Amino acid sequence: MSTIENQTEAADWLQSVRWNSADNRLDLLDQRLLPDEIIYLPLVTSEQVWDAIKQLAVRGAPAIGISAAFGVYLGVRDASGGREQLLEETVKQCDYLATSRPTAVNLFWALDRMKQRAQELASEGGEPEAMKQVLLDEAKLIQSEDEETCRLIGEHGLSLFEDGMGVLTHCNAGGLATARYGTALAPMYLALERGMHLKVYADETRPVLQGARLTAFELQQAGVDVTLICDNMAGAVMSKGWVQAVIVGTDRVAANGDVANKIGTYSVAVLAKAHGIPFYVACPISTIDMNTPTGGDIPIEERHEDEITQGFGKRTAPQGIKVYNPAFDVTPNEYVTAIITEKGIIQAPFEENLKKLFAQA
Amino acid sequence: MSTIENQTEAADWLQSVRWNSADNRLDLLDQRLLPDEIIYLPLVTSEQVWDAIKQLAVRGAPAIGISAAFGVYLGVRDASGGREQLLEETVKQCDYLATSRPTAVNLFWALDRMKQRAQELASEGGEPEAMKQVLLDEAKLIQSEDEETCRLIGEHGLSLFEDGMGVLTHCNAGGLATARYGTALAPMYLALERGMHLKVYADETRPVLQGARLTAFELQQAGVDVTLICDNMAGAVMSKGWVQAVIVGTDRVAANGDVANKIGTYSVAVLAKAHGIPFYVACPISTIDMNTPTGGDIPIEERHEDEITQGFGKRTAPQGIKVYNPAFDVTPNEYVTAIITEKGIIQAPFEENLKKLFAQA
Repeated sequence: MSTIENQTEAADWLQSVRWNSADNRLDLLDQRLLPDEIIYLPLVTSEQVWDAIKQLAVRGAPAIGISAAFGVYLGVRDASGGREQLLEETVKQCDYLATSRPTAVNLFWALDRMKQRAQELASEGGEPEAMKQVLLDEAKLIQSEDEETCRLIGEHGLSLFEDGMGVLTHCNAGGLATARYGTALAPMYLALERGMHLKVYADETRPVLQGARLTAFELQQAGVDVTLICDNMAGAVMSKGWVQAVIVGTDRVAANGDVANKIGTYSVAVLAKAHGIPFYVACPISTIDMNTPTGGDIPIEERHEDEITQGFGKRTAPQGIKVYNPAFDVTPNEYVTAIITEKGIIQAPFEENLKKLFAQA
Repeated sequence: MSTIENQTEAADWLQSVRWNSADNRLDLLDQRLLPDEIIYLPLVTSEQVWDAIKQLAVRGAPAIGISAAFGVYLGVRDASGGREQLLEETVKQCDYLATSRPTAVNLFWALDRMKQRAQELASEGGEPEAMKQVLLDEAKLIQSEDEETCRLIGEHGLSLFEDGMGVLTHCNAGGLATARYGTALAPMYLALERGMHLKVYADETRPVLQGARLTAFELQQAGVDVTLICDNMAGAVMSKGWVQAVIVGTDRVAANGDVANKIGTYSVAVLAKAHGIPFYVACPISTIDMNTPTGGDIPIEERHEDEITQGFGKRTAPQGIKVYNPAFDVTPNEYVTAIITEKGIIQAPFEENLKKLFAQA
């Protein structure tokens, strides 16, 4: 147990999801306030976790999954009754937390894992209080496994990069989106550790500006050479020959290799292809959903128009204007050069090669 | 004279540049405050006009040219001395106002026209006070001609559109950017007048949000069906089949048909091509610079990093972050389907066809 405690508490780096053993609560970095303020929300109920996910206090597919797992524990720890009642309550909490956001498959993956663990415990005849403790440990395990997964993604990703390369990324698939290192940003952190120089371009990523507020911030903090651009500058920067690779995270990969990620990713992928620049997607295999045949089957969340019309406290569009505000888009597999996972690098034909990957795993 | 007075004063529509005869000054709509506030800046010196152009109170290539022309008059109207001294002062004012912004060729075109008019007057032996009045009339004429030019651009552009089409535009090349109607938006206003329905998508256009603040605003005011999107949604909207044409304005067209326009235009052009959507550029022929051989010869203004890091009044990026903030980009001619001018529609080969156009004119 103590190993897990050490891994999930008292980090040197800016940890987005932090289990607080002393107070038996989840401390969640409020990413909406970054880079101005570093404030942790002390969460003690699953409703608070649901809200934090819904309101984007925590974002990034792996970080959402980890938070939801802790949310399950917070939702059942005060449950009374016997084994079966606890199992029932755990399932109920998992189903409830799954409604917080529709696109990120890691959310459902983590909740399924918690549900399954509870079922195992119940079938093994576990006592309710012991079961609760094991559910908490499972959430911690999901977190520590994610850190290791991200490190491995970084290793594989780094093998595709060379010293001096320009790399463009969109949104935030960094340490803040995961337990540590991130997915798309993991190779950049490992490059830095090894004295390799990458020149990173971070799209600001409207409407919520995760690129400006989070990616630029965490890379700058770490000492990575990063330049912030507006989303619509990506094409211009590519045309100047400044970018040799694009790397992004993803909220869900379909069985055919189609990729759902933050709105704007598709535009970047099309631009990369037009400029002959490889387009990489970095993710844990938990983000690959073999039950979703194609990108067309991924539900795309539409968010409130205020994010566009008054995203920064000040109204920047006329009253009553019609707005289209999808949170994600789908990049068809033909634009994807490779998917970088903790198990290795997958290339086209994706349908076939993803099947093989899961057959091995 | 009275015709010009009527055309340049007391407009029903929101006029960005308005000569105020009663007070003998230039009233300039402060476009930075739109859509929240409709405030006219009362300008009485050429220095104030220079500042207004530099600080983007007035923007849009034709509107900049018109404002600068009035600025010349404001700069010389109190000049003392004889004919030659007035000519000298006019040239000086033109050279000064030309330094306000580097990319929009209409600025230089309008100032050259004012300079040339002063030279004609001087060589005809004009009296200083009469010369000043003619310079003011010339500025008014530039404005009224621009309105007619925009209407003709609208007519030609509309011939390319069909009822029910989706049309995407970037930045603001609307009535606010010109004397009236705009360039890229002119076909939309004429379509509306004729009961034809177009569904317009307006890119918000970071960093200064001319699309959200100006295009969405002026189209909404007029009753055009307009939907606001973030720049990075253009690809997603195209992939859904919602867009049948892209139309944008331009700050300068090179002799080979390369187009300099608001940053992000190039990305939109590449996306349009990848989706098989025609990409139209609308401009008066005064925007075509036969002395600029290619887009590579057009100076691209870089603007202050604050536009990106705290463009919404609130800081949205970390302190000290590196930023790249070009105001424009260049779209190579192979991405341009047609250039729509008051003299007709020009298609590839652009170098040849632009030469023909100017030979005729």
